[in-house]
Amino acid sequence: MAYQYLENITLEQAVDDFCSAAAAAHGRLTGELIAVDERALGRVNCKILTAAANAPHYNACAMDGVALNAALTAGVTDTTPLTLHSGQYVWVDTGDALPEGCDAVVMVEDVVEGEAEGELTLYAAAAPWQHVRQIGEDVCVGEMILPANSVITPAAIGALLATGIQQIEVYKRPLVGVIPTGDEIVSPRPAPAAGEIINFNTPTFAAMIKQWGGEPRPYDIVRDDLTAIKQALLDACSECDVVLINAGSSAGREDYSAAAIAELGTVLHHGIAIRPGKPTILGLIGNTPVLGVPGYPVSGIIVLRELLRPLLAALCGMAPSTDEQADAVLSRAIVSGLKYREFVRIKLGRVGDRLIATPLDRGAGVITSFLKADALLDLPQNCEGYEAGQTVRVELLRPRGQIENTLTIIGSHDPLIDNIADIMHRRYPRSYIASAHVGSMGGISAIKRCEAHLAGIHLLDEQDGSYNFSYLRQHFPDGGVALIRGFKRIQGLMVAKGNPLGLGGIGDLQREGLRYVNRQRGAGTRILLDYLLKQRGMSSTAVYGYNREEPTHIAVATQIASGSADCGLGIYAAAQACGLDFLPICDEEYDFLIDARFLELDLVRQFLAVLTGEEFAAQAAAAGGYDLDGAGRIISEF
Amino acid sequence: MAYQYLENITLEQAVDDFCSAAAAAHGRLTGELIAVDERALGRVNCKILTAAANAPHYNACAMDGVALNAALTAGVTDTTPLTLHSGQYVWVDTGDALPEGCDAVVMVEDVVEGEAEGELTLYAAAAPWQHVRQIGEDVCVGEMILPANSVITPAAIGALLATGIQQIEVYKRPLVGVIPTGDEIVSPRPAPAAGEIINFNTPTFAAMIKQWGGEPRPYDIVRDDLTAIKQALLDACSECDVVLINAGSSAGREDYSAAAIAELGTVLHHGIAIRPGKPTILGLIGNTPVLGVPGYPVSGIIVLRELLRPLLAALCGMAPSTDEQADAVLSRAIVSGLKYREFVRIKLGRVGDRLIATPLDRGAGVITSFLKADALLDLPQNCEGYEAGQTVRVELLRPRGQIENTLTIIGSHDPLIDNIADIMHRRYPRSYIASAHVGSMGGISAIKRCEAHLAGIHLLDEQDGSYNFSYLRQHFPDGGVALIRGFKRIQGLMVAKGNPLGLGGIGDLQREGLRYVNRQRGAGTRILLDYLLKQRGMSSTAVYGYNREEPTHIAVATQIASGSADCGLGIYAAAQACGLDFLPICDEEYDFLIDARFLELDLVRQFLAVLTGEEFAAQAAAAGGYDLDGAGRIISEF
Repeated sequence: MAYQYLENITLEQAVDDFCSAAAAAHGRLTGELIAVDERALGRVNCKILTAAANAPHYNACAMDGVALNAALTAGVTDTTPLTLHSGQYVWVDTGDALPEGCDAVVMVEDVVEGEAEGELTLYAAAAPWQHVRQIGEDVCVGEMILPANSVITPAAIGALLATGIQQIEVYKRPLVGVIPTGDEIVSPRPAPAAGEIINFNTPTFAAMIKQWGGEPRPYDIVRDDLTAIKQALLDACSECDVVLINAGSSAGREDYSAAAIAELGTVLHHGIAIRPGKPTILGLIGNTPVLGVPGYPVSGIIVLRELLRPLLAALCGMAPSTDEQADAVLSRAIVSGLKYREFVRIKLGRVGDRLIATPLDRGAGVITSFLKADALLDLPQNCEGYEAGQTVRVELLRPRGQIENTLTIIGSHDPLIDNIADIMHRRYPRSYIASAHVGSMGGISAIKRCEAHLAGIHLLDEQDGSYNFSYLRQHFPDGGVALIRGFKRIQGLMVAKGNPLGLGGIGDLQREGLRYVNRQRGAGTRILLDYLLKQRGMSSTAVYGYNREEPTHIAVATQIASGSADCGLGIYAAAQACGLDFLPICDEEYDFLIDARFLELDLVRQFLAVLTGEEFAAQAAAAGGYDLDGAGRIISEF
Repeated sequence: MAYQYLENITLEQAVDDFCSAAAAAHGRLTGELIAVDERALGRVNCKILTAAANAPHYNACAMDGVALNAALTAGVTDTTPLTLHSGQYVWVDTGDALPEGCDAVVMVEDVVEGEAEGELTLYAAAAPWQHVRQIGEDVCVGEMILPANSVITPAAIGALLATGIQQIEVYKRPLVGVIPTGDEIVSPRPAPAAGEIINFNTPTFAAMIKQWGGEPRPYDIVRDDLTAIKQALLDACSECDVVLINAGSSAGREDYSAAAIAELGTVLHHGIAIRPGKPTILGLIGNTPVLGVPGYPVSGIIVLRELLRPLLAALCGMAPSTDEQADAVLSRAIVSGLKYREFVRIKLGRVGDRLIATPLDRGAGVITSFLKADALLDLPQNCEGYEAGQTVRVELLRPRGQIENTLTIIGSHDPLIDNIADIMHRRYPRSYIASAHVGSMGGISAIKRCEAHLAGIHLLDEQDGSYNFSYLRQHFPDGGVALIRGFKRIQGLMVAKGNPLGLGGIGDLQREGLRYVNRQRGAGTRILLDYLLKQRGMSSTAVYGYNREEPTHIAVATQIASGSADCGLGIYAAAQACGLDFLPICDEEYDFLIDARFLELDLVRQFLAVLTGEEFAAQAAAAGGYDLDGAGRIISEF
């Protein structure tokens, strides 16, 4: 197969070459005539639009009063008034056409009706054209309303109609075919088999195409077969203005696409110096630009943003739409190789008057991770990275107002945080909660780095069995933080329904053949396990699966429910949610650590209102294993 | 008729009362089930969405290599290798389901194939679950994907499908009826009669409704007749979720709407303390909120933004979308009464690193004026105004990037500026030109105030007959400005086709019965007229229509073409454009004044490239009367 190795050309070069090749082969999109009404919203006019009618299109009276010929009133003053007789003037209302022979309007307040029928007296001369909105006062025929290649707005629709333009030529929406490929890819279905991957890329890409003014055309999934892929490409290229071919999710699958494009047309480039997105293919089949998109969803999203978006704009001679940018301070260092330009997903949080940027995991395979990102940081190819504390410019993926109204909770996981997030956004529609699960110790670090407003923690002091306070004294010796009381919850061993292995407690974890599943390092639940093992003089190396790490209670429960593990430590609610049995071990205190400066934030007050509210209490009761006594109490000294 | 006088309640109160009354009567919009695909883009989910499937939904091999049971490899090291036989392991590719009985994957790089068929040697122990993407690693069943009332994005579509959610309940798009009323209002047509007003409000409002996620339903125009208006309201209220009734363009027309709403339901408020938008009506007919919108288009746009937008958001429990805000420095003072909260249209220009805000004319009747606005300044009711130089926060009406890439040209009018604007945006898609016609002297002021990058000027020095330089020496004694050579153009008297009055030149302007039309004070063409009159010893008071002012050459020509004036001074191109005859008087020099700091701006370079380019030369030649010799030359000393 051709193209065994990839190029590493720069993104700028790739965009230039792709857009130029498309322009040379394809030219501009053709235009279509449409009526000027709300359906024109967001379309783009192909040609300059100039007024076809004057606005106003007639000389209009601008006041209620009498219209007359101003020449009649020459020399009229307070001391030399003028009396007019019917026939010399016309009563008019605002908006009326100026009557024939008249060139001025005198306001009703400035005329005195005489005793004789139709007699009027004036005490001042009228200037020619006073109180008349003259023809073309706003716009004259031939004046430009919009230059070519403007996006039609509501005000533009009004202005066009007001100046006599009822039809405009706009660029046809580019029809963009999306061909999913891959033996493992299946259409969305309730219960995919092991090894099958739901095709969620196609609808995601289709929505992006729609967002950028294109018309998506999704095609059926094509197997990893060169002949089938070629046929699909030929069909799509005959129907569409642009074609995307999306490789399967495994490495190397784009080779089929490259080979197929090479056999049917030209591969312009295969391999771009960006990450994610390296194995992108740019090609041309006949007149149709073809973009080979890598299979990983995050790679695909980046490649569409960086290559399809400029191409669609170029097809109608426009600059690609850009996202709002913002300056943000990095909470931790980012290291980058010099080989690629990198697009790093960023979580933003407003802390004081600064936006704090926290780089997210760079794995490109997880679509849900993109949903959590607030921004993208574009790390140039020749840049080795940035230091923590450095200010960087990022491209926003959500409206800035939304980001600034987001309460960030990073730390230990509890499923109730999702409930709080849902209730809070419903109750305070401008407010959002973003949460990340990095364990209690990770939460303490996040507060230190100003990455979060709140951190959920449940940290057992092995010395005295108390929770949280001793850790705070140790990590914040200078104070500056407070604790918002959360809830008590029950920790215990989660086991399969019916406890088929007859486990009795922690002592059984070393049993031969028993498969344990643990939490990640720094998680309060893992610290609890270590404590429990130590209490009993047990060694963690003797627990099979001690190093098998899951990030949440629910994830641990899910492994047990799926049968790939026999037990794990976690909270009652997680066992409940996954239909597991539960062997209670102890109560613990799950609280929220907060930088004391944030206690006055509206977002924190709203959080407290939710935490102490009835809806939350009902949901916690339904989840089970929680005790909300004292929730929301603020403890500033410990 | 009821409601002869208007209230003056605050906008905040009006929004609260309207949204609460609507919520009490109408409740939330009902939901509808839709498939999760690109059509879900921009919709809003009614309920929290939690994962219906684990992602991944099976234990997946994360590397190419062999899958095995990690327990087999306990104690294996470099010095105590392990040889496996077929049946003890399974070859796997990335993404394959982990085979039954296996709990780890060893990378292909870490196994050594033996000589015997199926023999493999390992030199390290495998940790349980190494290189396996475990069930639910990304998301577990029950975890929140989106809280209720989220706007569905492309990434959300992907994340929902990836976690087994194929259908979601979203709020129905609110159906918003728009009823235009007014005897003078007619549907868009090629040649409306004098006194008729084209109904451009309805499509403008419909486009705004669409932008905010509603579904507009335009109704037929209703005459100013109480019975007809009541019937139209009843019909619309029976079909729609919200109804707008738009009054005619004359003052007081909204009284019909108020009376009709009062007879059919309840008028909550009539009269809000905002300008424009004061005569707004808020009502309820049955369960349907009704908004009475004033007739002036700019008033209507403001009222929809301030009252309809929050109502639509409230109907699905969301915060209204907000526009991006920016800080800008006022170039001149704004004075406001204390009676109203004012929304002032603002033109913005980036000058250096500041945005300069110039208030636009406050007339509410002109839709084309809204098209020129970049932002709105919200002047609180208790505020008397702002000083020039003060920094104010404004709401942007266009993307910030577009505003910052706009070259602002304020000063004397020449029709070729439209041509330059069109060519420039086509040639440099990110760049825009905004122009305003305030005469040459106005242009000089605009440069002094930093309101513009460039000012078109053509100012005759009466002493020596030279153009522009002496004015610059006078107004910029300290320098700091330069002149970009524009073009020579021919000034002359524009007269009706065939010169029916047989005019010979300036000497005829005092002829009995002759109707002259002039330019505004400060316009170079008016200064030229004054010079020509003075040369001949003529008095301006003897010129009938000397005080009749039009802002552009084209506007003067339009008056003559329409027959409401007999002649006016202007350029050849304007006479040509309006089919007039032209009596040449003199050549003049039309140049562009520029603050010297801006000479290095990309926008200015692009402007120069257009000014000296072939496309512009061809368009100037087609317009006629221009000489481009020397265009684009920069003169820094004078």
